[in-house]
Amino acid sequence: MEQRLSLVTLGVPDLDAARRFYLDGLGWTPVLDVAGAVTFIQVAPGVLLSLFGAAELAADVGDGRPPMTAPGNVTLAHNVSSPEEVDAVLAAAERAGATIVKPAQRAAWGGYHGYFADPAGTLWEVAHNPGLAVDPDGTVRFAEA
Amino acid sequence: MEQRLSLVTLGVPDLDAARRFYLDGLGWTPVLDVAGAVTFIQVAPGVLLSLFGAAELAADVGDGRPPMTAPGNVTLAHNVSSPEEVDAVLAAAERAGATIVKPAQRAAWGGYHGYFADPAGTLWEVAHNPGLAVDPDGTVRFAEA
Repeated sequence: MEQRLSLVTLGVPDLDAARRFYLDGLGWTPVLDVAGAVTFIQVAPGVLLSLFGAAELAADVGDGRPPMTAPGNVTLAHNVSSPEEVDAVLAAAERAGATIVKPAQRAAWGGYHGYFADPAGTLWEVAHNPGLAVDPDGTVRFAEA
Repeated sequence: MEQRLSLVTLGVPDLDAARRFYLDGLGWTPVLDVAGAVTFIQVAPGVLLSLFGAAELAADVGDGRPPMTAPGNVTLAHNVSSPEEVDAVLAAAERAGATIVKPAQRAAWGGYHGYFADPAGTLWEVAHNPGLAVDPDGTVRFAEA
């Protein structure tokens, strides 16, 4: 199995609310948007964020599980270049309808971060990590490595 | 807020089991691996998969929530180029210690797919989607779009 992530799918109880948050609120542009069915948003080279109904996602998994509910064991992170950008992005997310779960602050690991929850409760960390760099070709490096 | 995913963090109850599955089992190479603390694996340009303790992740979110538990509302997907590759990847994941949740089969949306759960219960879909293409620069396109 190659070392590759292609999609992150969020099962949401209210697809319209999720679309409003990510498309209208954050201003993200979808690759494919089928109202009432599914919305795909590109969030990295080769990687899509997919908004899908919680019941439909459970049905797709197909083992009789109940509709998916947040937050589970997965958090998503959006890294930025400075502490000031962390503040700005958390404020923008809140204006778009997010709930601030952790206000921006120094992180135990040495950076600066905060968390918000999208309307479905999915957790996003917004972080400035001075020890992490992304090369122009997308290779991620740690100062400590 | 820019349209960007930087990390997907999995909160796991047994970090050693997660490391064994992804590093030894699947053969993935970490960018940074601090035994007993955290493991970062690059899974797309600019994107890391992070393995972290479920209790430590809850503490990092910092609002007093209990340790994160799978599966929640998020599924991850690994796309491949053919139905045969779906079969092969699911078999490889099972040999590495995954639980097959949905055996490989035709999908309602027209492709071919299956699901496995990692040792923490995180759901991965393995899929061949003939309607989706990734350009050399990482741009994702749908045939339907």
